[in-house]
Amino acid sequence: MGNVFEIAVIPGDGIGPEVVAEAVKVLNFVTNGSENKVNLTEYKLGAEHWLQTGETLPDETLEALKKHDAILFGAVGAAPGDTRIPSGLIEREMLLKLRFSLDHYVNLRPSKLYPGIESPLANPGEIDFIVVREGTEGPYVGNGGSVRTGTEHEIATEVSINTAYGVERVVRDAFARASKRERKHVTLVHKHNVLVHAGHLWRRTVEAVASEYPEVTHDYLHVDAATIFMTTDPSRFDVIVTDNLFGDILTDQAGAITGGIGLSASGNINMDRTYPSMFEPVHGSAPDIAGQQKADPTAAILSVALMLDHLGLSAEARTVEQAVEKEITSRQELTDHRTTREIGDAIVSLLA
Amino acid sequence: MGNVFEIAVIPGDGIGPEVVAEAVKVLNFVTNGSENKVNLTEYKLGAEHWLQTGETLPDETLEALKKHDAILFGAVGAAPGDTRIPSGLIEREMLLKLRFSLDHYVNLRPSKLYPGIESPLANPGEIDFIVVREGTEGPYVGNGGSVRTGTEHEIATEVSINTAYGVERVVRDAFARASKRERKHVTLVHKHNVLVHAGHLWRRTVEAVASEYPEVTHDYLHVDAATIFMTTDPSRFDVIVTDNLFGDILTDQAGAITGGIGLSASGNINMDRTYPSMFEPVHGSAPDIAGQQKADPTAAILSVALMLDHLGLSAEARTVEQAVEKEITSRQELTDHRTTREIGDAIVSLLA
Ligand SMILES: CC(C)[C@H](C(=O)O)[C@@H](O)C(=O)O
Ligand SMILES: CC(C)[C@H](C(=O)O)[C@@H](O)C(=O)O
Repeated sequence: MGNVFEIAVIPGDGIGPEVVAEAVKVLNFVTNGSENKVNLTEYKLGAEHWLQTGETLPDETLEALKKHDAILFGAVGAAPGDTRIPSGLIEREMLLKLRFSLDHYVNLRPSKLYPGIESPLANPGEIDFIVVREGTEGPYVGNGGSVRTGTEHEIATEVSINTAYGVERVVRDAFARASKRERKHVTLVHKHNVLVHAGHLWRRTVEAVASEYPEVTHDYLHVDAATIFMTTDPSRFDVIVTDNLFGDILTDQAGAITGGIGLSASGNINMDRTYPSMFEPVHGSAPDIAGQQKADPTAAILSVALMLDHLGLSAEARTVEQAVEKEITSRQELTDHRTTREIGDAIVSLLA
Repeated sequence: MGNVFEIAVIPGDGIGPEVVAEAVKVLNFVTNGSENKVNLTEYKLGAEHWLQTGETLPDETLEALKKHDAILFGAVGAAPGDTRIPSGLIEREMLLKLRFSLDHYVNLRPSKLYPGIESPLANPGEIDFIVVREGTEGPYVGNGGSVRTGTEHEIATEVSINTAYGVERVVRDAFARASKRERKHVTLVHKHNVLVHAGHLWRRTVEAVASEYPEVTHDYLHVDAATIFMTTDPSRFDVIVTDNLFGDILTDQAGAITGGIGLSASGNINMDRTYPSMFEPVHGSAPDIAGQQKADPTAAILSVALMLDHLGLSAEARTVEQAVEKEITSRQELTDHRTTREIGDAIVSLLA
């Protein structure tokens, strides 16, 4: 007997609705006719919604979202320079609020250079790694403030908070994932020579967890050095585990070297399943190309694959990944720019 | 009538002494016979010195250093995995202590892709920008701590401190430098959608200072997006102004895309001249290749050019830069690997 999965869909702003439409198409197709069904409920949230209603993420919406098995998320954010929306408001009060309220402690971001995709690197080599970014701590906790704001005596602080509990669970996740991969290697990225207290907590935790995984090797890189290797030798990476801010920076760089964040999927995962996990493309709402069918829905579709995996539908996840890989490889022969819908349709037809 | 400049030289560890020897050769050559003289005093500091004496940076040494007109610094740091030296000790108690005690608020790091140097980017375009990294605040202040350390209830914090005073002086420096460059463009890099308080202080300061420089244009990038553009379109950058940590990360990436940090010079500058400024290659002590004449002294030599500029010897600075540029361009025809000394000698002979 199959399951019915309740999926919340948040298309959001800009290109969000366009790429999510294709992701939903793929999700429906791959579950249609199988014993597992999905039941989709759409939630209107984001900058547009805020402009219309003044709501970022009301408590009732958050409670309703909690009842789902997973969330498919597009993108949110106003056009840069849109002065009607306080800068960062939607990101913090909605996107980050979801990640924190639903305890998405594993922010999983795979990076792969697909055959047929041009990397901006001259000699990219084989790129196939995952970043396990901590999602609920670090400088993202919103702890900080300012005094004498706006005067010449202003002091503004930002506090990075790191707990043994929070670091251990994400490090454990990284080692567990590494143990299932071919190269079985974990790289901790931090800056422990400067950020001593947080850095040492991370290092000690990695050493402790590593001893439980004798088959997994591990090393350490300062974040500055990591950006060098990301440029000169990205094949050295297998599993990167890092804090919320360093993970933010490194995964955008990783997106760039693998041909653009139009292909980068991510999962905001609660491994304890106390709340639903959320799957979203790494890219933003790109208001400049919104509504023009110019966005690549691949990152959103690959996020569906991550979601299927998380729901235990691994066969379906592999099917989606393989169709995406085939579609990407076939791009070498294409010269015309295709619409968002055409790319979605091409992937669906490869699924068929 | 000329001046006599008192220069402190800190060769440090690993390849530090080798690259500093070539930098000193260039410095002596370019000032020899001119009306301006340099008088060099060597200071032994670094990991080796700590192992022998237990001293990182004694107060008397710091006071003695303050009497100089500038400091030429090689590199410090023990071999990774050398367990005799507490990790990060030399970096914090000596290198960062110098930057903070001597109020080096402008950490100036130029990035240029020289003709003849291969970039790891497939289409690097013209790369010629400077990063003005704040050097005395941010997450580098050493403010943080941990409680219940080593237990499952550990909490570790790191506090980024940003002041109107500290941000304004470095932003002002960035605009002043931009106004003297051809493209006259400043990019502020931060993450104000998450690090709200620090981010807004930086943004407000940039807006305020920008209004005094109508000829200088400016824009803003989140640090994650900046790493993307650093990969896909580095020519867009002219002057980047950013905080201590983001500057650390971006300048290593900038070093990588311009052919390696073996060519990246830096100045830790106190623009008010209350204390001597310090000039150092961006690279570290590279213990793995130390003592083998394998290191490229170019970054150290370009740091001498930055030092000459700061001392008001702009003609000498240009001479050094031009000799370096010629030497680098001539590398295209070379197949043999040259020693540290051979590269230094080649630059000196181009100065002659
Ligand atoms: C929009 C922003 C808050 C977010 C982040 O910093 O995490 C984004 O950059 C990302 O990586 O998902
Ligand atoms: C050695 C370290 C403390 C230093 C820094 O982080 O500033 C180095 O990475 C640099 O960029 O000069």
